[in-house]
Amino acid sequence: MATAPTVDAVVRAAGPHVGPLMSRIEERLAAVTAGHGELLAEHAGSTIAAGGKRLRPLLVLVAAGPEATGDGVVRAAVAVELVHSATLVHDDVLDAADLRRGRPTVVAAAGRDIATATGDLLFSRAFAELANNGRIDEVRVLSAAGSALASGELLQRADAWDASVSVERYLERCELKTARLFQAACELGALESGGEDGRAAVLGAFGRRVGLAFQLLDDVLDVSGPADRTGKHRGADLLDGTVTLPLILARERDPELAALDVRAVHSPADAEAVCAQIEATGALEEAKRRALAIVADAKAELPDLPGPQQEALELVADGVVERYS
Amino acid sequence: MATAPTVDAVVRAAGPHVGPLMSRIEERLAAVTAGHGELLAEHAGSTIAAGGKRLRPLLVLVAAGPEATGDGVVRAAVAVELVHSATLVHDDVLDAADLRRGRPTVVAAAGRDIATATGDLLFSRAFAELANNGRIDEVRVLSAAGSALASGELLQRADAWDASVSVERYLERCELKTARLFQAACELGALESGGEDGRAAVLGAFGRRVGLAFQLLDDVLDVSGPADRTGKHRGADLLDGTVTLPLILARERDPELAALDVRAVHSPADAEAVCAQIEATGALEEAKRRALAIVADAKAELPDLPGPQQEALELVADGVVERYS
Repeated sequence: MATAPTVDAVVRAAGPHVGPLMSRIEERLAAVTAGHGELLAEHAGSTIAAGGKRLRPLLVLVAAGPEATGDGVVRAAVAVELVHSATLVHDDVLDAADLRRGRPTVVAAAGRDIATATGDLLFSRAFAELANNGRIDEVRVLSAAGSALASGELLQRADAWDASVSVERYLERCELKTARLFQAACELGALESGGEDGRAAVLGAFGRRVGLAFQLLDDVLDVSGPADRTGKHRGADLLDGTVTLPLILARERDPELAALDVRAVHSPADAEAVCAQIEATGALEEAKRRALAIVADAKAELPDLPGPQQEALELVADGVVERYS
Repeated sequence: MATAPTVDAVVRAAGPHVGPLMSRIEERLAAVTAGHGELLAEHAGSTIAAGGKRLRPLLVLVAAGPEATGDGVVRAAVAVELVHSATLVHDDVLDAADLRRGRPTVVAAAGRDIATATGDLLFSRAFAELANNGRIDEVRVLSAAGSALASGELLQRADAWDASVSVERYLERCELKTARLFQAACELGALESGGEDGRAAVLGAFGRRVGLAFQLLDDVLDVSGPADRTGKHRGADLLDGTVTLPLILARERDPELAALDVRAVHSPADAEAVCAQIEATGALEEAKRRALAIVADAKAELPDLPGPQQEALELVADGVVERYS
């Protein structure tokens, strides 16, 4: 997630309409989880309340620009955040994660059964919410992103424990798992702006790059730690068999890591040791450098936009980097 | 599922357009699972291939009538079956089921991780498929049904192991878990028929009743067995804490069953004994009688329709009953 000061800066830069819209998004998210029975209210409500800094809804608003202040852009932002929340709940089931942002996950609090059904419900509600905009082009965007997210999860499972995975394959997985929903957020915003044709594609490409960089840096953060910054133990990805860019790059530099059997990494202490070894190769700097280059591309390829909108989008991109530093 | 002869009879009654449309639905379902990577092809493919008798797609076609033979009705039918398949995959995760229609489930073959992501992908593909019809009213119908399905699962988990659940609560759960997707199938068919306003609501009510009866009889079948007919052990619902109408009714008739702690039913042999005890109370006949009354209502409330369409819809309703006998 972006840091809170970044979000505040984006909200300030984007214009006075954004703060009130973010409040309406929060209210609507709370209403959606409150309106479907106690179990959803309890478990999805806690996931959504814990919900990070609302980077994706913010992207929807900033991509939409100052003209879009109606229910449409709010619904689009809520729908994107609901899909994201559904994914978090299911990811935690897959990872059997205990904590998410320092709080117990739905799966830890309520078990796999309820977590699976909660994710399904959030996902369905996302489409129900978006359908109220009456725009089939928006439904297409969100369903494509939803498919990508799930395909990315499947790819991650297919690649689990395989340290020989290529950089290209890793990037494809990041595209699917993360970048495509950022892309969808920007596309939905652009569609809600009622702007010219082609705007959705250009802003979508910006979102995709920002999302890709976001995932790369997230994976760096898992190796660099420390745990009190991320709410997880260092090397959590390794422990569930997910091989990410730092290890892929480090294997080219350290023969011992090249020979590592990921399945042999059993304990948090094992994972900590491997993380230190990855760090010693300089692979974290290289991974970070790649992420920064993607962010620079994202900014360079932005079209000419009104000043505040341009500034806000650049701040979002910078915020993705700042969370690392 | 309906028995194969019933499906054949419906196809014959509904008109010569239905057989070719069912083939196109099969082809499209196969194409959807083939187009998203090996893991989906393998696991979702096996679920969909095992896929029962395509009762829900058939309902879409029969509700649409003979005028709707284009891609639209095929996509609607495919979308409904994809949502159903997604639900099956996730239900099996929730139930940790080993077998579905006599074949290993996705969760048994590939683990919870892949089964969860597979269900998510099927669900997303359903909306992507339906969005290609370009009709937001159809997306609304399917997202409402999707929300209902997940709410029903949550309700079932909330009620797990609670033998004191009321008939009303049980029926609400059946509505959400099952009837609403049957309703959606009929509504989507009616929308694709381009028929008069209000037709979707009337046919939707028919589908809802048929779906409700379907679930009641499914729950009867779980108690009446035998395993070689259903592909599951008798009393599987009891073993995972799901209290259904036969036990709810039997508890009013047998004080020993009224005092039963469902958590004490541990083994297939325990479940078998409880099923026999439920059967001895006559509760199965009562549950079946209620289901038949719902089917009779469904048929009685059908509007005036062209002969073949009317006959086909009645055959679907009858087929739901026949699978029991």
